[in-house]
Amino acid sequence: MIGEIDIFREPDVDAPVMIEGLPGIGHVGRIAARHLASELGVKKFATLHLNSFSPHVLIKKSGLIQTMKNDFYYWKAQEEGQRDLIIVTGNTQSTTPEGQYNLTEKILDLGMKYGVQEIYTLGGLGIGRIVDKPKVYGAVTDRSYIPRLKEMDVIVERESVGQIIGISGLLLGIGKVRGIPGICLMGETSGYYLDPNSAQAVLDVLTRLLELEVDMTRLQKRAKATEMKVAEAQKMERKMMEDMGMVQREPSDDQMRYIG
Amino acid sequence: MIGEIDIFREPDVDAPVMIEGLPGIGHVGRIAARHLASELGVKKFATLHLNSFSPHVLIKKSGLIQTMKNDFYYWKAQEEGQRDLIIVTGNTQSTTPEGQYNLTEKILDLGMKYGVQEIYTLGGLGIGRIVDKPKVYGAVTDRSYIPRLKEMDVIVERESVGQIIGISGLLLGIGKVRGIPGICLMGETSGYYLDPNSAQAVLDVLTRLLELEVDMTRLQKRAKATEMKVAEAQKMERKMMEDMGMVQREPSDDQMRYIG
Amino acid sequence: MIGEIDIFREPDVDAPVMIEGLPGIGHVGRIAARHLASELGVKKFATLHLNSFSPHVLIKKSGLIQTMKNDFYYWKAQEEGQRDLIIVTGNTQSTTPEGQYNLTEKILDLGMKYGVQEIYTLGGLGIGRIVDKPKVYGAVTDRSYIPRLKEMDVIVERESVGQIIGISGLLLGIGKVRGIPGICLMGETSGYYLDPNSAQAVLDVLTRLLELEVDMTRLQKRAKATEMKVAEAQKMERKMMEDMGMVQREPSDDQMRYIG
Amino acid sequence: MIGEIDIFREPDVDAPVMIEGLPGIGHVGRIAARHLASELGVKKFATLHLNSFSPHVLIKKSGLIQTMKNDFYYWKAQEEGQRDLIIVTGNTQSTTPEGQYNLTEKILDLGMKYGVQEIYTLGGLGIGRIVDKPKVYGAVTDRSYIPRLKEMDVIVERESVGQIIGISGLLLGIGKVRGIPGICLMGETSGYYLDPNSAQAVLDVLTRLLELEVDMTRLQKRAKATEMKVAEAQKMERKMMEDMGMVQREPSDDQMRYIG
Repeated sequence: MIGEIDIFREPDVDAPVMIEGLPGIGHVGRIAARHLASELGVKKFATLHLNSFSPHVLIKKSGLIQTMKNDFYYWKAQEEGQRDLIIVTGNTQSTTPEGQYNLTEKILDLGMKYGVQEIYTLGGLGIGRIVDKPKVYGAVTDRSYIPRLKEMDVIVERESVGQIIGISGLLLGIGKVRGIPGICLMGETSGYYLDPNSAQAVLDVLTRLLELEVDMTRLQKRAKATEMKVAEAQKMERKMMEDMGMVQREPSDDQMRYIG
Repeated sequence: MIGEIDIFREPDVDAPVMIEGLPGIGHVGRIAARHLASELGVKKFATLHLNSFSPHVLIKKSGLIQTMKNDFYYWKAQEEGQRDLIIVTGNTQSTTPEGQYNLTEKILDLGMKYGVQEIYTLGGLGIGRIVDKPKVYGAVTDRSYIPRLKEMDVIVERESVGQIIGISGLLLGIGKVRGIPGICLMGETSGYYLDPNSAQAVLDVLTRLLELEVDMTRLQKRAKATEMKVAEAQKMERKMMEDMGMVQREPSDDQMRYIG
Repeated sequence: MIGEIDIFREPDVDAPVMIEGLPGIGHVGRIAARHLASELGVKKFATLHLNSFSPHVLIKKSGLIQTMKNDFYYWKAQEEGQRDLIIVTGNTQSTTPEGQYNLTEKILDLGMKYGVQEIYTLGGLGIGRIVDKPKVYGAVTDRSYIPRLKEMDVIVERESVGQIIGISGLLLGIGKVRGIPGICLMGETSGYYLDPNSAQAVLDVLTRLLELEVDMTRLQKRAKATEMKVAEAQKMERKMMEDMGMVQREPSDDQMRYIG
Repeated sequence: MIGEIDIFREPDVDAPVMIEGLPGIGHVGRIAARHLASELGVKKFATLHLNSFSPHVLIKKSGLIQTMKNDFYYWKAQEEGQRDLIIVTGNTQSTTPEGQYNLTEKILDLGMKYGVQEIYTLGGLGIGRIVDKPKVYGAVTDRSYIPRLKEMDVIVERESVGQIIGISGLLLGIGKVRGIPGICLMGETSGYYLDPNSAQAVLDVLTRLLELEVDMTRLQKRAKATEMKVAEAQKMERKMMEDMGMVQREPSDDQMRYIG
């Protein structure tokens, strides 16, 4: 059914952490989440189709059709200090404001059904120029995260008020309203192309926070397999900004865009 | 009732194949479906009005008003090897993403009510130049179709990921989620005008796949009777693409648009 | 309640004719309907607010606020040969496709509740130039109206397929689906300003069709009192066309826009 | 729950007056309402998230995330002649026409639940130039307010029909339909930046009307703390106007924009 998450397997998780990485600027969050999922060896347990997703399908090189969708994976902790995970990724966000809030609620409903304790959302921060060593920015819904983020050189405080556009922001904001705290990690990216380099910077922080071991050697290759071209992602992003009455301009230092 | 398919006659079909041809690029799918329906001598059994269809009506040359709608026809197989058919055509698709998904679900609901086994969707593939002998491309939701398509010189594999925008893609993608396999056949077309030539190429493959006999002599004439001007169809298509954040550009070889 | 017609008085009507004149090109339909209502001495019996109406209010010269709304009036036939009337007018149509279909259904629901037998919708036909003696065009949902319209020099047949954008078309098209026949009368108008001249041409036909006596002397003055500026109406119209993927151009002879 | 006002404390009010100040042109209404709330020492009792609010969150300088929301405060009258108050403010209005009507109904539902007797909405009037002493304009839903407004040099009558775009207009218009009278106070503002000067002019009238004592010394400073940049507010406003088919132009004297 379009509009309802199809749960085809019960995830074997206990008090899990939810990690979201959907398409956004530079596809940073999506690349990071997909790589994490592949390297950990997660199991897919649910899929979501929404009528606010873009009304098209993809044709893979083989000629096979793929719908626009979000997929849910779970992973059982292996070692002391690790946590069970639910990972949300996919090839689209919603195309309308109402759709973005609806998607947020669907994801949170599923998370709460399985006892999610914290939400980590992953995304890019467009800075309009190419950087060698992308910095990672953080935003939180609970002050208690801040010291630990600073220890890991994540930039938390800023000169001026910023924004997180799309699902990476809404999951945290509405999650907080529902009592689930969380963090958004944003890697600097030019915004001009798919950016596995920025995704690696984000994953590097995430894996240290969650005490995960993830090999990065296949990250670059995997990024290239991402079906949606970054040009399309940029247009989707621009559309969302226009829908909100925000015209996208060259970002300046005090006016950086956080999208994930 | 707007929003509900009005079934005014029970279709006499057994395990039918559904064929969709609604307005899209070059009106290829619509021209093909209308010609097929006329030549086979189908019976209309249902009509759908949706509030996501364009809020206007057409005035025919006679002064009579026609609503924007989708019509459903059925046809009973005549010979060994043929299959019963349900054909969906009309003068519009929906104008919003939500409306396109809603239309998809309405059509699939009707199809499943009457036991549809497979879905064939017909459309155009805009290549931005006029061709003498339009090639036909295929996309599928089940690998088992591929050998047979290749036998008929349908191009299935491609160099890069593509898209099917609109109902021809959604019917297959969401149909697959519901367990109904299918094929999209797309005829090359310039995208500049109504293209009965491309429609004929598509019909040629379709009739061989379904073992139907269809005379093509009246196809050209019938195409001209299509009420909606292709200029309007192009604008509708551009609007849908803009709604999805995709700006329409000149298609290049690795960036062809599949719309049906 | 927004979304429900507030009926504050039972209309004393028997098998009435419904007449619609809402804002559109040149405000022809609205001016005609308002003048007719005033001259006949109708009674207001219902009001409709919809969430698809524009989210603003008007401030009258006195400083009093007026909502965007549609009003319903009734009139009891006075003489042999006349029919009871329900007149629908107001300061807005809906701003979205879904809203236009919703408005159509609300108006038809009310009409059917009181036994409406026929629907007459009034509008302008933009021709992009100023004319001295505007011609009146007609479109119908039942062939039997055509001879009588031709007698009155209404132009019914045309060279190419046309359109009626907005509520004047939908009321007839969806009305027909519900079994109520009707006519759209469209007066030629430049589309550049409020056009009482075109409204008078339309009223002239309407009053002969319905055997009504209406003094036209106050029509010009009344038109000037229309609150919404035609510039705004043009923008609303352009917005509706854009929503449907139709970009407004200079109309040519075979491409005239019918909006009412 | 998104879409339902979360009332987390019963407001101790008797027949209160409701005051609305949400983002709009120059943020005049919002600055005025926030200052009033702070100086009076109000208590927050409810919060509203809507799926028509912009799908993003703010990141404060501290790194903490803030959702887009409307907050409700109450204040108990202290002296003879004062009235209990409910103040509505926040960082956003809805982004769609349907959303604006929905927001209006949610606010009115809450107001009626607690016996609101009158509604005062606060906003800016964009005049396209900077003025030293902003005049205050008024619009009402009940004539009986007019003499008192004129005593206070509020301009009520005008040369031509005007508009109030957004929630400040809808609350009054739909409030009137529900039987609650009210006033909109609009301070002249250039529309180019946050305008505490205009907010002070509006507050000056409001406090005299409601016999409130409010110190203005911290108003300028507080305005600077407003998170949303006025550039964004202008874009939101322009978006709303475009959604209604109104293109924003330079306002002239007889074509001033009232937005609040």
